[in-house]
Amino acid sequence: MSVQAQWIGVDWGTSKLRAFAMEGDTLLATAQSDKGMARLVAGGFEAALLELVEGWLGDGPTDVIACGMVGARQGWVEAPYTAVPAPALAPKPVMVPNTDARIRVHVVPGLKQTKPADVMRGEETQIAGFLSRNPSWDGVLCLPGTHTKWAHVSADEVVSFRTFMTGELFSLLSKQSVLQHSVGEGWDDEAFAAGMDVTLSRPENLASELFGIRASDLLNATPSAVARSRLSGLLVGAELAASRPYWLGQQIAVIGEQRLSDVYAEALKAQGGWVTVVDCQDMTLAGLSAARNLLG
Amino acid sequence: MSVQAQWIGVDWGTSKLRAFAMEGDTLLATAQSDKGMARLVAGGFEAALLELVEGWLGDGPTDVIACGMVGARQGWVEAPYTAVPAPALAPKPVMVPNTDARIRVHVVPGLKQTKPADVMRGEETQIAGFLSRNPSWDGVLCLPGTHTKWAHVSADEVVSFRTFMTGELFSLLSKQSVLQHSVGEGWDDEAFAAGMDVTLSRPENLASELFGIRASDLLNATPSAVARSRLSGLLVGAELAASRPYWLGQQIAVIGEQRLSDVYAEALKAQGGWVTVVDCQDMTLAGLSAARNLLG
Repeated sequence: MSVQAQWIGVDWGTSKLRAFAMEGDTLLATAQSDKGMARLVAGGFEAALLELVEGWLGDGPTDVIACGMVGARQGWVEAPYTAVPAPALAPKPVMVPNTDARIRVHVVPGLKQTKPADVMRGEETQIAGFLSRNPSWDGVLCLPGTHTKWAHVSADEVVSFRTFMTGELFSLLSKQSVLQHSVGEGWDDEAFAAGMDVTLSRPENLASELFGIRASDLLNATPSAVARSRLSGLLVGAELAASRPYWLGQQIAVIGEQRLSDVYAEALKAQGGWVTVVDCQDMTLAGLSAARNLLG
Repeated sequence: MSVQAQWIGVDWGTSKLRAFAMEGDTLLATAQSDKGMARLVAGGFEAALLELVEGWLGDGPTDVIACGMVGARQGWVEAPYTAVPAPALAPKPVMVPNTDARIRVHVVPGLKQTKPADVMRGEETQIAGFLSRNPSWDGVLCLPGTHTKWAHVSADEVVSFRTFMTGELFSLLSKQSVLQHSVGEGWDDEAFAAGMDVTLSRPENLASELFGIRASDLLNATPSAVARSRLSGLLVGAELAASRPYWLGQQIAVIGEQRLSDVYAEALKAQGGWVTVVDCQDMTLAGLSAARNLLG
C-alpha cells in the first residue's frame, strides 16, 4: 500500500536519520537509515533524505520539518541557536535553499545557554512536543541519551539546561578502556543501585571506583553483567549528584528510549523524586508538528 | 662499541617493552620496542625480548629481571599478586621456565588490595626503588600515568593504594569523544588551574563540566590548547578530590614522566602539599636492582 504524506517529520542526529510520514498529527509510516551527520558531507543531505522519503511525495511540494544535528554549522543549513530563557521553539525553522522541487525543507534551531556554556540540537523539539501536550507544565525534564540533557521548564519556556556526557562515557569506558575486559552484556539491578549509591553520596569517588571494576574482576571474577551495571550505576549516580540542583523538589518527566528512561526514573524515584516517563518518539513528533505550525 | 650486560632489567608494560643493560647499579645501554603486552600472544615473549637484548648477552646465562604486565595471567609467566600491607617486593620474582639457555628470566609479582579491590603491576618496582633509595620513608607516593596510583608507604611497606583512570580518561575524551573536535595540542596553565579548581572544590561537577568544554568552543571558539588544559585540569582536580584522604597532611613524592609529574606536583603544591618529584626511570632501575638482590 502506498503512503502519501501531508508533511514529513525528520529527526536527523549524529548517527541516525529517521523520517516520519505524517497526516496532521497522525503517523502514517516511518523509515530510517544510518546516514547521520557523522557519515555525510556537504551536498549529501538531499540524496540521503530523498532515498528514504521519495515514495511518500505527491505532486505538489511537501513540507519537511527536520530537527537535530542537521541544523549545525556542518549540517545541511545552519539554524543558529536561540539563547535561553526562550520558548523551546523560537524563532521559526530555517528553510533550506535550492532543494529538489518536490520538497520544502525546514530545520528547527537549537538552543544555547551563555553561562554556563551549553547547547542542544534535537532535544528542544522533544521539549516543545512535551509542552504542546502539557501546556504550562512547570518542572524539570530529563532527556537521557549519549549526551543527557536536564532542562528547567517554566511558563512555557526553557529557563536553563545542562548537558552530561554520561552515555558517551559509558560507551567509551565499556568498549574502549581497560574496563572492556570486565564489562559484558546483561544487567543486574542490585549492582546498578550499589554503584549509584557510591557516587550519589560521594561523587568524588567516581575517579577511583572506575578502576575498581577491573580490579574486582581480576581478584574476584565479577560476572560481566554486574560489572556493566556497576559502571552504569557509578556514572548515573555521579550525574544525579551533579544535577541535584535541577531535580531536587521538582516534578520530573523523563523523555528517552524506554529502557534508559526506566533506569533514570527508578533512580530518581529512589531519591524521592516525583517522576513520569514519556515516550520519546511521541514527543519528537509532537514537537515537529508544533514546529510546522510556526511556518504559517 | 659492544655492550655486555652483567644483568638486564626490563619494564614490560601494555604498550611498550623497555630493556636496560646493567653492570651492578650502572646503566650501560637501553633499548625499546612497541612489543608491549597488548601486541603479544603466548609464545611471542621470548622472541620480542631477544630481539632487543641479544647483543648484550655473554657466554654464560644472563639474569633478566622484568616487571609490569608481563607477569599478568595473560603474560609470559603469571607472577601472582601479593596482598598489601606488604613490602613492595615480596616474595622473590617468579622464574620463567624453559627459556633460551642464554637468559634466565625472572618476573616481579604485582601487588593487590582486597578492599577496596585494587591491583598494580610495575609500579611496585618503582616504589621498591624509591624505598631502596629512601629507607624508612613515610608518606604518600603518587605515580601518575595511564592509571595513576596513589600509595601510602610506611615502615618500608605499602600499606594501601588506589588507582585512578585519569590518564586513560583524558586520552579517551580528548581523542575519541565529542570533545575531540575542541581539544588540540598545546598547554595553558591558567585553564588547567581553573579546571582543577572546579572539580577539586565540587567534584560532582565533573559530569557536567566535560560537555561544557565542547559547548564553550561552539559558542566562543575556545583555543584548542585551553580546551585541552581545562579537560586535564577537570580530571586531575577530580582525582585530587578523591585522593585527598591519601595526600592531605602527608609528605608526597611524585614518580612519573617529567612533564606529567610536574603537573601533579604543581597542583599538589597549590593545595599546600609538601612535594618532591623523583625520576621515574631511576626508580624503575633501582627497583629492578632490588628485585635482583632477592634472587640470592
